[in-house]
Amino acid sequence: MATTTDRSRRAFVMEEAVAILTRTPATLDALLRDLPDGWIAAHEGGNTWSPFDVVGHLIHGERTDWVPRARIILEHGEARAFDKFDRFAQFAVSEGRTLSSLLDQFATLRQESLRELAALRLTDADLERRGRHPELGVVTLRQLLATWVAHDLDHVVQISRVLARQYTDEVGPWRAYLRIISGTQG
Amino acid sequence: MATTTDRSRRAFVMEEAVAILTRTPATLDALLRDLPDGWIAAHEGGNTWSPFDVVGHLIHGERTDWVPRARIILEHGEARAFDKFDRFAQFAVSEGRTLSSLLDQFATLRQESLRELAALRLTDADLERRGRHPELGVVTLRQLLATWVAHDLDHVVQISRVLARQYTDEVGPWRAYLRIISGTQG
Repeated sequence: MATTTDRSRRAFVMEEAVAILTRTPATLDALLRDLPDGWIAAHEGGNTWSPFDVVGHLIHGERTDWVPRARIILEHGEARAFDKFDRFAQFAVSEGRTLSSLLDQFATLRQESLRELAALRLTDADLERRGRHPELGVVTLRQLLATWVAHDLDHVVQISRVLARQYTDEVGPWRAYLRIISGTQG
Repeated sequence: MATTTDRSRRAFVMEEAVAILTRTPATLDALLRDLPDGWIAAHEGGNTWSPFDVVGHLIHGERTDWVPRARIILEHGEARAFDKFDRFAQFAVSEGRTLSSLLDQFATLRQESLRELAALRLTDADLERRGRHPELGVVTLRQLLATWVAHDLDHVVQISRVLARQYTDEVGPWRAYLRIISGTQG
């Protein structure tokens, strides 16, 4: 548990987590909507994801991961493992869609998720309830919700990194100063 | 120069660069405005920067770095080195300010910067004009503008990473899956 003077760690507080979760759709909307197609389809080579792929992944998470897993913990505890999360579902789900329609859908689904989360009226005791991850083993509801927040931010990082690295060659000597391109810290 | 089929690199195109630069203030606004204070003051330990510090740094960049340096290149070429950029100016400038006022100011300054950039009516030949960085040596205007874009995105990455890492302990076993926390890629 973080102390009040340590600014590098925070203890999970529901309202603070919801404050981040609420903002993610608008953040991605501001960053991505109506960007030129080349940026939207940009990736980091090989099988890495584009901003378009990431938004599809976040949509799939709203449908099958966060609130559904919270419900499994509350209803079944450790007796029933979570369903496995399909990290590649977005490729089929997003096919032929526009980025705008994906952003709209993510915003709608996130709003619904947060409404459902509020309706659960979780107590501090609830947050300590345990479930079973198919690979990671025993986890708590509190850890699941903290992961939801960090996962959102991880993908904001990923999208911004993918975009920045498109200019790896174009920045010339400044490469040395841009951590996101030089890779010294990301 | 990127080929059209390589999605991991893009050649610098003014309109595409401006598309990103235009969006940064709204992205940071969506992510940060009215967040609980603990998030705004969060950092990564030691002398690392908080989201509050980063917005101040971006404000200082609008005032002294990007368009001012473009003007030095256009007016003086390699004959006059850029003024050094003060990476710590924000600590004095931001003192006692609210995050909201910093976000407002950044949005206003960015709008002005982009208006000035448009007024320069840069040609392809202008983009190849050279200036002199006090440490990096000869750079082109094209590299300066590409760096402006990557620098914005680098700081979106930084802010998101700082926030995500606050939950390093709270995510429990999921740490292994969150690249932003495990540090395997950032």
